[in-house]
Amino acid sequence: MTEDATTITTVLDAVSFDANGLVPAVAQQHDTGEVLMMAWMNREAVTETLTTGRVCYWSRSRGKLWRKGESSQQIQYLKEFRLDCDGDTILLLVEQEGVACHTGRRACFYRAVRDGALVEIAAPLIDPEKLYG
Amino acid sequence: MTEDATTITTVLDAVSFDANGLVPAVAQQHDTGEVLMMAWMNREAVTETLTTGRVCYWSRSRGKLWRKGESSQQIQYLKEFRLDCDGDTILLLVEQEGVACHTGRRACFYRAVRDGALVEIAAPLIDPEKLYG
Repeated sequence: MTEDATTITTVLDAVSFDANGLVPAVAQQHDTGEVLMMAWMNREAVTETLTTGRVCYWSRSRGKLWRKGESSQQIQYLKEFRLDCDGDTILLLVEQEGVACHTGRRACFYRAVRDGALVEIAAPLIDPEKLYG
Repeated sequence: MTEDATTITTVLDAVSFDANGLVPAVAQQHDTGEVLMMAWMNREAVTETLTTGRVCYWSRSRGKLWRKGESSQQIQYLKEFRLDCDGDTILLLVEQEGVACHTGRRACFYRAVRDGALVEIAAPLIDPEKLYG
């Protein structure tokens, strides 16, 4: 999906960005419901995501736009953009190409508390070296 | 699920709390996959959640622990506690009693961009007056 300037303005006006101009965005695989990752967006990232239909975050560590998949080819195509009651969290329904996690796992939430321990519940599907090497 | 002190210490050591001592937590209905809400936890909230098996957040607006459902009876029972690759986001698989959203809707993400507009895609199931009145 791609949106025009009027729609994007409507969305930007409805989002409550924090003191740093950021809002958390949760990415969920649209058909399976799997929660893939959480990252941050600023106004520019929201605008680019809605304009292009490809998810773009704001990398806090690198201090720049992060076009998901620009290095790894693991692109997120936007299926639906949702906003919560307070406008301070975004839910992105996406079609995830390959894997969402930089460790090569499908999703970032691969550690779980089970039987009194924090255990890994998913293995890498792709060698991170192949993603970023 | 409830956890002992050793397990809780393991989890707390693995979580990267931000400069304010907080970490975002996404709540997902464990069987349907629906993303219900996002809120924040501090060390105390993580500890209480894992100890009691009932989800407890930190309310940034009220500046105190927020035992989900304490006013509304819309309790979240913890099914599984997951952590992401960087330890800076929690995913809670929960059994949500009733509704998660203070508006009376099942989930907080009830606004979506469709046909160029930001529209409501879910109606309240419970009158908020009945939840908090």
